Amino acid sequence: MSPTLTAPPRKQASDRGRLEPLTRLVDDALERALPKATLPPQVIHEAMRYCVFSGGKRFRPLLCLGGCEAAGAPARRAMTVAVALELLHTYSLVHDDLPALDNADERRGQASCHRKFGEGNAILVGDALLTMAFAWLGRDGTPNTLAIVREIGSACGTDGLIGGQILDLQAISQPRSSTERNLRDIAQRKTAALITASVVSGALAGGAEAEQIKRLRRYGQSAGLAFQLIDDVHDRDGLAQVMGTEAARQEAQRLIARAVEALEPFGRRAQTLRHLADWLLETAQRP
Amino acid sequence: MSPTLTAPPRKQASDRGRLEPLTRLVDDALERALPKATLPPQVIHEAMRYCVFSGGKRFRPLLCLGGCEAAGAPARRAMTVAVALELLHTYSLVHDDLPALDNADERRGQASCHRKFGEGNAILVGDALLTMAFAWLGRDGTPNTLAIVREIGSACGTDGLIGGQILDLQAISQPRSSTERNLRDIAQRKTAALITASVVSGALAGGAEAEQIKRLRRYGQSAGLAFQLIDDVHDRDGLAQVMGTEAARQEAQRLIARAVEALEPFGRRAQTLRHLADWLLETAQRP
Repeated sequence: MSPTLTAPPRKQASDRGRLEPLTRLVDDALERALPKATLPPQVIHEAMRYCVFSGGKRFRPLLCLGGCEAAGAPARRAMTVAVALELLHTYSLVHDDLPALDNADERRGQASCHRKFGEGNAILVGDALLTMAFAWLGRDGTPNTLAIVREIGSACGTDGLIGGQILDLQAISQPRSSTERNLRDIAQRKTAALITASVVSGALAGGAEAEQIKRLRRYGQSAGLAFQLIDDVHDRDGLAQVMGTEAARQEAQRLIARAVEALEPFGRRAQTLRHLADWLLETAQRP
Repeated sequence: MSPTLTAPPRKQASDRGRLEPLTRLVDDALERALPKATLPPQVIHEAMRYCVFSGGKRFRPLLCLGGCEAAGAPARRAMTVAVALELLHTYSLVHDDLPALDNADERRGQASCHRKFGEGNAILVGDALLTMAFAWLGRDGTPNTLAIVREIGSACGTDGLIGGQILDLQAISQPRSSTERNLRDIAQRKTAALITASVVSGALAGGAEAEQIKRLRRYGQSAGLAFQLIDDVHDRDGLAQVMGTEAARQEAQRLIARAVEALEPFGRRAQTLRHLADWLLETAQRP
């Protein structure tokens, strides 16, 4: 049930071309932000890097940088926030994979954190990434930091990500509760909330006005639900199972169109967010 | 190895009298801050409250309010920070008790979180408390919030709390590594770091100057190490085991005296911090 879409092929020449340099900037910023693997206690820093540099597509950081550009500011102004978002996403995967939750042995084609470093260390790696994300946001220099902390904190809390994990855990133990309505609620909290907060926090860092935030929130909510639908279509589970694969795919495509519509007043400033929607659409069309 | 000092008896008439009203204010603030147990998903909110309202002595929130008073501001100005600190302390206990870490069935005389709510839920309860703590700090109204986020984030990160947990985990699997030096390093990171950040973040909320922060940091570091020494004396393990009980007790008493010395220039404004040192000294003298 966890989002595991294949990483966008970085060397592909397409309308996604613009995403490559931004993705490299995010990777460089993560590289600089994370403590060196040789710093004691070594095992935790090594494990944090193992999890963060495992081929993730940096979808949330890119949404954040795209939100910042849409607000009329250069992408780099939101880089601190983008780094924090990837740390948060990674923490959620590390804990989600634990034996007491999804019990996943693999993640992105390599051993999951607890399979590689042991369960105790994996719990602490997740805690460390979560803690570092908020400490990182506390660095000076990004406008509207407190509003960003509240936006992201709420998306990651019991209304959002953690609430979704709890409902997911209940759905695993009571499979009869996996109705479409419940699965939509889980997708909203577990996936769409942080995706929405990624766009909105980037926009806040870029100094967006209330009306712009409202539109970008609509983009994020549509893209976020589409993202989960596509993931379920590829995994043939979750919403694709209860709705039917083609119905789920078609809804994802409609949602992506609605996301792009929300960008209309931003003109060329929303190019990155459009490219991200295009990439989503490509993945939706894959068999 | 986790700090489990008995809660200070709240009805005792002594020089601790001043601590009772402040403790009640902290409890009230926690009561208002935490989501109601009836709010869905119910299990997570019920479990968060179960862990936060289990007889904790609110040592870190009281240190924070005391730090704020020492800086010349009313205690209530640091109440948001005090709430966040108790949420962080509680998260650390919930995760520390998990089977893959300390594997503790009980905490403060009741079933530990994972024994009561299951391991998956307990992981998420810790995550929720940690997330809420930082989201709570993002509320407007406290001066110097970003400096406070950095101070607390650093104390909870791999240099502090989590680093201490990692070293503790290694010490459990390699008992021969439990030298006095290692145990001091663990105590510093796992206990003293957050205790120090509690005093300092309160002082920051109260608008303290650099020289005041420096002295209050010294108070926190001495009180923090004393706290762990006393805990080990009562549990007859850790530093008390390798140093000998009486040597550990005497060092705790010397550290408390040093903590009180650091308060000298603050006069009556440091009364709460002095009362907290007195309470520590009482517990140190108990057999």
